[in-house]
Amino acid sequence: MRDFLPEEMNMREELFDKIRAIFRSYGYEPLETPALEELEILTLKCGEDTNKQIFRVEEKLGLRFDLTVPLARVMASRLDIPKPFKRYCISRVWRREEPQKGRYREFWQADIDIIGSSHIGAEAELVACASECLRAVGIDKFNVRINDRRILEAAFLEMGVEKGKLLDAFRAIDKLEKIGVEGVRKELATHSISETHIEKIIRFISISGTNDEKLRKAREFLEKQGGGKHLDGIKELLRLISTYGYGDFITVDFSLARGLDYYTGTVFEISCSGGAGSIGGGGRYDGLIGAYGGVQMPAVGISLGVERIFDILKKESLAKRTRVLLYIAPVSAELYNAGILIAQKFRSMHVPCEIDLMGRPLKKQFEYANARGIPFVAVVGDREIKENMITLRSLETGEEKKVSTEDAAKIILQNSGIP
Amino acid sequence: MRDFLPEEMNMREELFDKIRAIFRSYGYEPLETPALEELEILTLKCGEDTNKQIFRVEEKLGLRFDLTVPLARVMASRLDIPKPFKRYCISRVWRREEPQKGRYREFWQADIDIIGSSHIGAEAELVACASECLRAVGIDKFNVRINDRRILEAAFLEMGVEKGKLLDAFRAIDKLEKIGVEGVRKELATHSISETHIEKIIRFISISGTNDEKLRKAREFLEKQGGGKHLDGIKELLRLISTYGYGDFITVDFSLARGLDYYTGTVFEISCSGGAGSIGGGGRYDGLIGAYGGVQMPAVGISLGVERIFDILKKESLAKRTRVLLYIAPVSAELYNAGILIAQKFRSMHVPCEIDLMGRPLKKQFEYANARGIPFVAVVGDREIKENMITLRSLETGEEKKVSTEDAAKIILQNSGIP
Repeated sequence: MRDFLPEEMNMREELFDKIRAIFRSYGYEPLETPALEELEILTLKCGEDTNKQIFRVEEKLGLRFDLTVPLARVMASRLDIPKPFKRYCISRVWRREEPQKGRYREFWQADIDIIGSSHIGAEAELVACASECLRAVGIDKFNVRINDRRILEAAFLEMGVEKGKLLDAFRAIDKLEKIGVEGVRKELATHSISETHIEKIIRFISISGTNDEKLRKAREFLEKQGGGKHLDGIKELLRLISTYGYGDFITVDFSLARGLDYYTGTVFEISCSGGAGSIGGGGRYDGLIGAYGGVQMPAVGISLGVERIFDILKKESLAKRTRVLLYIAPVSAELYNAGILIAQKFRSMHVPCEIDLMGRPLKKQFEYANARGIPFVAVVGDREIKENMITLRSLETGEEKKVSTEDAAKIILQNSGIP
Repeated sequence: MRDFLPEEMNMREELFDKIRAIFRSYGYEPLETPALEELEILTLKCGEDTNKQIFRVEEKLGLRFDLTVPLARVMASRLDIPKPFKRYCISRVWRREEPQKGRYREFWQADIDIIGSSHIGAEAELVACASECLRAVGIDKFNVRINDRRILEAAFLEMGVEKGKLLDAFRAIDKLEKIGVEGVRKELATHSISETHIEKIIRFISISGTNDEKLRKAREFLEKQGGGKHLDGIKELLRLISTYGYGDFITVDFSLARGLDYYTGTVFEISCSGGAGSIGGGGRYDGLIGAYGGVQMPAVGISLGVERIFDILKKESLAKRTRVLLYIAPVSAELYNAGILIAQKFRSMHVPCEIDLMGRPLKKQFEYANARGIPFVAVVGDREIKENMITLRSLETGEEKKVSTEDAAKIILQNSGIP
């Protein structure tokens, strides 16, 4: 777990604000739930691996490991919410993982979900909205892989794989990137899936070509089990995402399954071309809400891995050290009062500023403003007060000018790039 | 613990955004710490009552009960941060309290702290900044009570109270509002404080009059113990807060002590005139950071009780049900694609909007937009597409007009009060 000092937090807040603005522009509404949930709720559908990662709190509680399970709990109990319900949530989750590079025990997720729609337009909108977020924060080389578990299901059943072994097969192929084809073969074998079936599975998940070619090649594997309509679904999804303007970012990938047990249909995984691994993912989980109440409800969501995104951005851009644009330096203790009045004036003109709080001599004040990375200092002396002016000094260029507070505000705000 | 549905969350986000903007304008920087801390850290200085309220996690961890202790831990280990360091944090904390009205087991705090300054200007700025937050969110009838534990200390010592009993006395008088004068008398007696001392203590904490009169009356109680300089400090604090423009909101109150053990000097408590109890508080905790490391460091902070503030605002204002301003209604499935393009256009013009995700007939779409409280619907039909227009309908007035998307955006944004 990590402390976030101001340099990082300023960047994180900016990132969250940008993502939130785009979520809102697509009509998603905020819904927040407690960090703590009943253990029973958390473990109901999470699968064994995730279960081990839940932080236990007191006797019967646990810290949430994702934002989807709590949403499902709410939706199961609040049937009065108009459907489709589109929610966003940018918040923390916790997993007791072994600490390793890029994995944290406390981390933030940025989720969007659409509850109550089975329409493929829901998937398209989620992918478009997530893509727009990535572009807005400056990531324009990314790839969204898509698949549908119902396609895998139809194909595997048609091969003769037993229905009871489907989930095991999904979990195995989900590890393809981590453990490679041989690893997947071995893992499939541990679930007593036959050599022949394993070969066919590997052949299916290795289907290659353009998106159109892949869809065509897949068709022969699963036409009999009625899987064709889900291939049509993917085709329609590709078309709609292109309408949104994000068609070039999409790759059909029949090896994509996603680890969590609750997915029932389409699945997505977003990765950054830099090879930084997954920066987001999601899918359809039509069974989850029903598991928490009596009513089945279609649902689909995408979660952006904001920690990974942040790690990428941190490498690529220099941190802005502070948002404070002005330091007010009274020349003597007698002028502190006058300094306060000037600070309040700048604040009312939307200039974030601060004033000496140590009673330090002018030189020390300049040193402090420099150490903080504050771009401007306003010197407040007797002469300045008499003339109703301040001496504005740029710590970047060293330039100094006697100006009114109004003119100073203009110079400072223009210089900082604030409109 | 509570779920926050969109009606509430929209208001909460607005509240947090406003407070954050003011914190930033005063030059406070964000610093965030994990929800989980070592139990050892949490319990070091929290006092017995708080200790009982800490949620235990796994073996050696606990959920933070405030935002100050984690800050102190960071400051003790990161001596490289330039001083004074001014931080803000708007985030959750947890306490295992018996649920009661206005008390939650998970709640948000909005804190500002100044580390490294002993200057009374620090206190003045905190009070001014907190007051400005309250005014900005629409609370303009509030009262900030101030006191200094060093004044109480000097007065009580001068009366002859033993040094070892001072903290017990502070805790007792802190309960004045809850248990009344008689209750305080009784509680003081349980700590074997003599009748005579109790009478004197009650007399001191009951000092009344204007702020100036109170300071004058108090002086005779504590001049010998050197407490006079802390009375001067309060006087200077009053003067500076007046300079900031918030003098009228301040009341000197010698009965104010604050419950937490770590306060060492000035203490504040903000209450709303509506009688909704405390909506914020804080004080100086010069000893806390030293307790977590080798280096003593002056520190002072204020925490706004955003839950209480939110409860007050909720009563007074109608919730804005959604931020979404426009619903795009394609007349038929064939026009869905055209609808997406129009939605993307509105989003690029900063109109938060949504589009049908159910393939529903027009009438159902209108019902849904109505249920959501979305003010406008854009009908997309064949004729509209041909003319490169939309039919914009206000769900409030029922008015309808065929307009370009650009004109529609203007109408919608003006109507919603967005600049």
